Amino acid sequence: MTEQGTLFGVGVGPGDPKLMTIKAGEVIRDADVLAYPVNGSGESHARSIAAPIIEASASELPIHLPMKVEREPAQNAYDNAATGIRHHLDEGRDVAYLCVGDPLFYGSFMYIAARLGSTQPIEVVPGITSLSACAALTRTPLAGRNDILSVVPATLDETALAAALGRADTAAIIKVGRHFEKVRRLLHVLGMAGRAVVVENGTADGERITPLEDIHQDTQPYFSTILLRREEVK
Amino acid sequence: MTEQGTLFGVGVGPGDPKLMTIKAGEVIRDADVLAYPVNGSGESHARSIAAPIIEASASELPIHLPMKVEREPAQNAYDNAATGIRHHLDEGRDVAYLCVGDPLFYGSFMYIAARLGSTQPIEVVPGITSLSACAALTRTPLAGRNDILSVVPATLDETALAAALGRADTAAIIKVGRHFEKVRRLLHVLGMAGRAVVVENGTADGERITPLEDIHQDTQPYFSTILLRREEVK
Repeated sequence: MTEQGTLFGVGVGPGDPKLMTIKAGEVIRDADVLAYPVNGSGESHARSIAAPIIEASASELPIHLPMKVEREPAQNAYDNAATGIRHHLDEGRDVAYLCVGDPLFYGSFMYIAARLGSTQPIEVVPGITSLSACAALTRTPLAGRNDILSVVPATLDETALAAALGRADTAAIIKVGRHFEKVRRLLHVLGMAGRAVVVENGTADGERITPLEDIHQDTQPYFSTILLRREEVK
Repeated sequence: MTEQGTLFGVGVGPGDPKLMTIKAGEVIRDADVLAYPVNGSGESHARSIAAPIIEASASELPIHLPMKVEREPAQNAYDNAATGIRHHLDEGRDVAYLCVGDPLFYGSFMYIAARLGSTQPIEVVPGITSLSACAALTRTPLAGRNDILSVVPATLDETALAAALGRADTAAIIKVGRHFEKVRRLLHVLGMAGRAVVVENGTADGERITPLEDIHQDTQPYFSTILLRREEVK
């Protein structure tokens, strides 16, 4: 019987290839198969970040995942992805699954790992999150001393968003996209708009950092994160 | 007039030197001066992580910071540290300040940057947080889909802790140390103890991962993080 391969969830960081870790580089170079999610246009953000260290001879396994909000198509896609990866692992090949940011912070890897973890060896190589990258770009302290930091998806409804934002010393609002107007309105109501900064495409092409109050209706930022701090650090 | 040097806040990650980024390595190698916090015993965790890439000829600036809870000694120490660093920057030397984890996630760098940022160029190189490292070690998803993730210091009182933990889909309780008993009691009251895992010394010597319910009074974990998830990922 062939020894099982290992599935590595590898964080490739937020966009700048230099924000990959030494360990991520080693695992990517040593893996027998490189898997990564691709969107409907066949593009893979994760692969593009790791591209400088992917060798021409690498064996690649693109994983087609829908960006849909609906659960069922996603569940089917994860099932199919797990089946495809399991085939390589059963043949004794190590598979590195490339993840934008960190594999366990809002990504697809956790759903694939949930399908394979009971039968296959799995290792996770953590990555720099978009949160750390946005904080670094804007020099916004995420948390200090006894601060509570909350990470809140903009996809929540206004009541849930207001409850989560009301208590945090620092908050990061992620997945802003088409929810931008709702979030902006809410931050004005909560009196927090003046301390909010919007980061678009952090560490990637098209990077832009703008105070929330300087953004107008006709320049809505997509692929953005909003960082908020209640008080200045001293 | 000499051109001002740049102060780099460099995240060296949670402990394993291979979890440093390529960029952190470059900045550490290129800096004129390496600064890092040292404790009362003269030891520096940040320096020990970066040690494999620090050259013997490097110019080093240890920064003595008290681990005290009281604000005033810390404020004085940050003032002194900023003065020492400013001296090098004014002479045109680039200073890399080494930070365990990420520079803007519960560290000393933000307080030094607050003292120098209005007059000196500052750049932040993000690092892998202890949070991402603990999640990777335990394969605990930090957040998926519309989850709210809260990072909560164990130093808060029980009411504040209960309020913060009650709403999060996933929570990381940091700075556990001598607050372990309080946190354990509270998690039992909240009915969350069964889903909590304790990570001691993540990715460093003495690393240990234990379900909360398997920890007994005589084996209290220090330097630990507690990760909690409300529901299984599917």
